[in-house]
Amino acid sequence: MMENNIGVLVLGHGSSLPYNKQVVSAVADMIAKNIENTVVKTAFLNIDTPTLYEGLKSFEGTGVNRIVAMPCFLAPGVHTTKDIPRVLGIEEGDNRTMIQLGGADIELLYAEPLGADPCIAGIACRKIEDALSEKTGMSD
Amino acid sequence: MMENNIGVLVLGHGSSLPYNKQVVSAVADMIAKNIENTVVKTAFLNIDTPTLYEGLKSFEGTGVNRIVAMPCFLAPGVHTTKDIPRVLGIEEGDNRTMIQLGGADIELLYAEPLGADPCIAGIACRKIEDALSEKTGMSD
Repeated sequence: MMENNIGVLVLGHGSSLPYNKQVVSAVADMIAKNIENTVVKTAFLNIDTPTLYEGLKSFEGTGVNRIVAMPCFLAPGVHTTKDIPRVLGIEEGDNRTMIQLGGADIELLYAEPLGADPCIAGIACRKIEDALSEKTGMSD
Repeated sequence: MMENNIGVLVLGHGSSLPYNKQVVSAVADMIAKNIENTVVKTAFLNIDTPTLYEGLKSFEGTGVNRIVAMPCFLAPGVHTTKDIPRVLGIEEGDNRTMIQLGGADIELLYAEPLGADPCIAGIACRKIEDALSEKTGMSD
């Protein structure tokens, strides 16, 4: 479906609780199944690891020549418009740069966060129905 | 599709930038279209308004007898497991309480956040493809 040699770095917020890393990692696994011939890794802005720097380094030796950083955030915010670009070395407001990994020049692209989408409203509606039918619980 | 007299309070994180409120409000509008005979309002934990308290108050006079608070967050975290329940008056780990609104007893239910879902991975894949085809940009 896409060209080979593409890396995807799924970026999570990170948390002192395990759930953000679990959700971001599960979404990354689904992305890996959806897009063939792509190397998918995760990285986290706060608390959890790999860090963003470690996440980029983890593509060394994989043969990718382009990496897309995908912020797994609902909406743009200070994290996605300032904090993450600063760590990735992307100018604020821009969406690409060149980086060196293991001596190779790699194009680093920056995707947009999820945004409002009917399917997110669909998930929310299911959660609302679960709450009304008493199927909720903090365990999972 | 659901019984009448249900209120849905869609809870956002809030942000110093306008995007979180825009996305949460757009998702709330979609929820209102998906679920008939439901009063849908928004509220925000930080910075943006209405506050959670103002959001609950906004159901006064609407005739709802149950309110579902739906955290529009990707994953459970400190905000959804501690901060929001504390403000709503729900015991940590529990998902319901009774509140008084305008002299009426109202059941307040607490839904789970969105969680990992194949459709979120699907949105992410579209954003990744947009980045690869240079369709990204901070404007929308």
